[in-house]
Order: sequence, then C-alpha cells, then structure tokens
Amino acid sequence: MNGPYVAVIGAGQATAEQERVAERVGELLAEAGAVLVSGGRGGVMLASCRGAHRRGGLTLGLLPGPDRAEGNPFLTVTVPTGMGELRNGLVARTADGVIAVGGGWGTLSEIGFAMRLGRPLIAVGSWTVEGPAREPSYPTADTAEAAVSWVLRQLG
Amino acid sequence: MNGPYVAVIGAGQATAEQERVAERVGELLAEAGAVLVSGGRGGVMLASCRGAHRRGGLTLGLLPGPDRAEGNPFLTVTVPTGMGELRNGLVARTADGVIAVGGGWGTLSEIGFAMRLGRPLIAVGSWTVEGPAREPSYPTADTAEAAVSWVLRQLG
Amino acid sequence: MNGPYVAVIGAGQATAEQERVAERVGELLAEAGAVLVSGGRGGVMLASCRGAHRRGGLTLGLLPGPDRAEGNPFLTVTVPTGMGELRNGLVARTADGVIAVGGGWGTLSEIGFAMRLGRPLIAVGSWTVEGPAREPSYPTADTAEAAVSWVLRQLG
Amino acid sequence: MNGPYVAVIGAGQATAEQERVAERVGELLAEAGAVLVSGGRGGVMLASCRGAHRRGGLTLGLLPGPDRAEGNPFLTVTVPTGMGELRNGLVARTADGVIAVGGGWGTLSEIGFAMRLGRPLIAVGSWTVEGPAREPSYPTADTAEAAVSWVLRQLG
Repeated sequence: MNGPYVAVIGAGQATAEQERVAERVGELLAEAGAVLVSGGRGGVMLASCRGAHRRGGLTLGLLPGPDRAEGNPFLTVTVPTGMGELRNGLVARTADGVIAVGGGWGTLSEIGFAMRLGRPLIAVGSWTVEGPAREPSYPTADTAEAAVSWVLRQLG
Repeated sequence: MNGPYVAVIGAGQATAEQERVAERVGELLAEAGAVLVSGGRGGVMLASCRGAHRRGGLTLGLLPGPDRAEGNPFLTVTVPTGMGELRNGLVARTADGVIAVGGGWGTLSEIGFAMRLGRPLIAVGSWTVEGPAREPSYPTADTAEAAVSWVLRQLG
Repeated sequence: MNGPYVAVIGAGQATAEQERVAERVGELLAEAGAVLVSGGRGGVMLASCRGAHRRGGLTLGLLPGPDRAEGNPFLTVTVPTGMGELRNGLVARTADGVIAVGGGWGTLSEIGFAMRLGRPLIAVGSWTVEGPAREPSYPTADTAEAAVSWVLRQLG
Repeated sequence: MNGPYVAVIGAGQATAEQERVAERVGELLAEAGAVLVSGGRGGVMLASCRGAHRRGGLTLGLLPGPDRAEGNPFLTVTVPTGMGELRNGLVARTADGVIAVGGGWGTLSEIGFAMRLGRPLIAVGSWTVEGPAREPSYPTADTAEAAVSWVLRQLG
C-alpha cells in the first residue's frame, strides 16, 4: 500500500463517546487511503477498525497474544505477535503517524514510543503529560476530523 | 538472586543533579541486595549502575542494540537485545519495581509499560501525567532515599 | 482476511530455480485466496511476493529493520519490526502453514520455530535435518504445485 | 562480567545422559569464568545451570513467559521476557558462543539463529543438518570437555 500507515491507539475499554470518535477516525482514514494500524482488540481499536472497514479501508492488527482469533472482526490483516504488551512498541514503529483517543497506561506507553521515534501524534481526549525537560508535547484535537486532517497534513 | 529486581529508568542525557540522584539510588539498591535493572547505556542508566557497582551490587543492562560493547562499564550482566526501543518493555517487565529519575520520551514509554503491568513505580523529578479516566497515578519523591525506601517497602 | 496465512521462507540470495519456484508458489497462494507472509526482502521473499502480486493476492512483509522502505516492491502491508532476525519467529507465528524454498541459516531458524509451534511445513529443496530424538520431520515436495496443494490441504 | 557469554541450548525434556553432559558443561564453563546463558527452564537448561551454580558460576536465564518464578532454581539472573519462543533468538544473540546438547525443534531454531549471527557453535548429540547450498556446518563433540574447550578457544 502506498497510503500512509496511521495508528489509532486507545484503550480496550472505552466510553461511548471515545468509540464514536474512533469510529469516525477510522472512516476518515479509510477515505484518505491510509492503512489503519492498531493493537487489534476491543474498545477504541475495534471502533476505529469498524469505521475503516465500512469505508473499504485496510486495517492491520498487531495482537498481543499468539492467537489470530483474539483479533476484532474488522481486521484485514492480523499479526498475532505473542509478545504481550511489547507489541505496543511495534504499533508505534509500524505507524507513520498516530492518533490517540482516550486510553489507559498501555496507550501512554505507545505515546512515549511514538514520540521517541519522532512520529507525528495528536491526541483526542487522551493523556496530558509534562516532562522534566519541558519537552515540546503533542497537539490535541476536539474532533475526529481535526485529528485526521492534522496527521495527514504532517505525512504530506 | 533472591533480592528484588528494581529498574532505574531515565534518559541517556541527564543533568548533573539527575545523575547524582541516580547514583545514590544505585548505591542504596545495592546495599539492600536488590538487582538493578536498566537500559544499560549512559546518563541516568550509567550513573545508577556506577553507584550500585561501587557498593558491590549486581547490575543488569538490557541494551537496545545487538552489541554488548555499547553497554556502560558498570554492568554485571548485559543482554544486547537488538530490539531497539522495544527493549523498554523488557526493562519494565523484568523489574519488580521501578524508580524514574528525570527522563525523556523513552522513559515515558517505560512508565506506561510499568504501570500497565502493575509494577510499583515512584518518580523523582520525572514525568507528570494525567489520564483521560483520571487513573490513580504514581507517587513522587524528592530524594533518592525516599524513592528507594518506598519501592522496597512495596516489594515487601 | 479469511484465507489462510501461508509463509514462504527462504534466503535473500537465491538461485534462479529457487526464485522460479517461489514465484509460482506465490501465484498459487494468491489464486487460493491465501495471505502470503514473508520476511519482506529479496530473493525467495521477493519472488514469492511478485508472483502473488501478479495474481492480485495480499502480501504481508515482516521486515527485520525499522524502515518500511527496505521492503520489496510487491508487499501489500509491511511491518518494519526493527527486531532484526528475531522477526523470523514472528513470521512463523503469523503463519498458519509454511513453505520453505531453499534457504540459509535464517531459514533454518524459521523452520525450527514453525515446527516448534506445530505449523504444517513443507520444504522444496531446503534444509534436511535429523534430530537427536528422531523427531518426525517435515515432508518435501519437488514442485510449487505439490507444496501449495499439501499446505492448503493441511489447513482445511 | 568480562568472561565470555556461552549459551547452553537443549530441550526442556532431556535424557539422563544429556543432563549429565549439560551439567558437566555448566561446571566447566563456571570454572572458566564464563557467564552461562540459557532459556532458564528444565532439562538441559536446568542441568547446565546446576553445574555452573555448584562451581560458583553466574547463570542468566531468558524465560519465555512473563513470570520470574518459572525459572529454574539455579539462575543468578532471570529475564522473564514474555515473548514466548521468540526468546530463543535473544538467547542466541546474547551468547558469544553456543553449545547444543540434544534438543528439540526449539533448539533447532536457536541453532539457526546462532549460525545466522556467526556465533561459534558446537553440538553434542544434537541436530544434524544439511542446507541446500551445502553451507559449512558446525562441529560436533563427544564430551562436555571437548565442547567447552572448543568454544572457549574460539572466543579467544
């Protein structure tokens, strides 16, 4: 695929509003021809895949466990890594850009990885962080549209 | 080793004050019989290993690259993982408890991992984070003594 | 994708005959609706992807390095693992079945992994191995057709 | 540690004779000041660690699961990788040299990795392999003494 790879990261347990945003993000990414990368499970991951799938987009799920069957039903391609939470680093590495929607501690690890790797990242109702060296942080967006638009612009 | 495994995480480029704290943390962990786990490179990692080494402690370095020679000179045991920044997840998994001193984005990924895995973690002049679900965060300490004392108490 | 995931493993430097077989394997897998998994680089990996691509098949490349650009031009989806040769284990884990064509030491590691995980595996002009416990080994085939036919039969 | 890192690889289920050889290998490595690297579990892994431990050697176990408690009782340092069989690649990468005693399919994957990485490797009653390109293979030894002596000589 020539489209950019964009990760949608967030928790496996999400609020209805987070899932609504994630689903819309998935739709917009698919319409833009992006490959949607995620951890492949429930909550924000599932909702974004459902949105992308509805619009004919390609979805890639990097699962923590060794079993393909644990992936959500909207994945085009699954990689059952069997690496547990270490797969969070693979999600960040595989993505050209990242959109964080809500999220728990695992999402925070993905944010750290993605920023460490220099990936453009934008957050919608996700973690707020402040580093000891006052590192420049990532921008935030209020809507799926603004988040997708910003990421795609960064990726040229 | 029967002693607890405690990770000292922080950036490869650190301030003099951060290195001073990290070195003292290393000394105290060695005196307590703990195994010091780290990413094995410079800055906070090196300083904490130097402190532990001075007190006869055992230090374990999980290196990002494939070459043992990139480890700092105060490591007892090195594992050249060749996994790049993914080794941050291994550091968190190998540790029973974690002390963060300063730190950059890679350190934030380790904090996320460690909290995701339920490891007791305390921060000295490190990241401040706030999650979308107002997750209970980790405590902070002002001194090496307070940080080590808290972690060892958590680990029984 | 509902089709089975079949890995084609072999060396990055291959003979003309090995590439011919690999390309034909790729064509046949695509025609059967399988997802072709590989290490994503040259030689047998590239030839099999070229064959699958020609027939409209989906190809997944798990790259050793951190850079998507190192993948061959016939990959639908790439995962730049940044894990070096450790990604050989991911290839075996991601595959439901495996076809080995020729191959070097890295291929042998994938054969070991795949057999350890119980994946059906067939070899075309690849390694011959004999274990200390006289473990039942894997079958061999003389042609791409026979190899693909056997693997697909195992995967039901 | 300045001593070389030598991996002892073999199956978790081993014959009495394989365990006898592995234990003697462990003793000899410890006497030579080497760090013994292994997968940290039973059979050949446990026997070699027992031998090294008896002679005061340092043993490093890279466990497949996420739980330190699954390691054998003779490990000085454990890394619970949580990466499953992918940790076989870490064992090979961490070792400067490798001794294979008996072994199953997982051992074969480690042999492939180690040879791919150019590690000196010697086999005692382990896999016999022949590659399609008639790659020069690894030597074999009949005794623990001969195997350890050969590996240490390679490592200077």
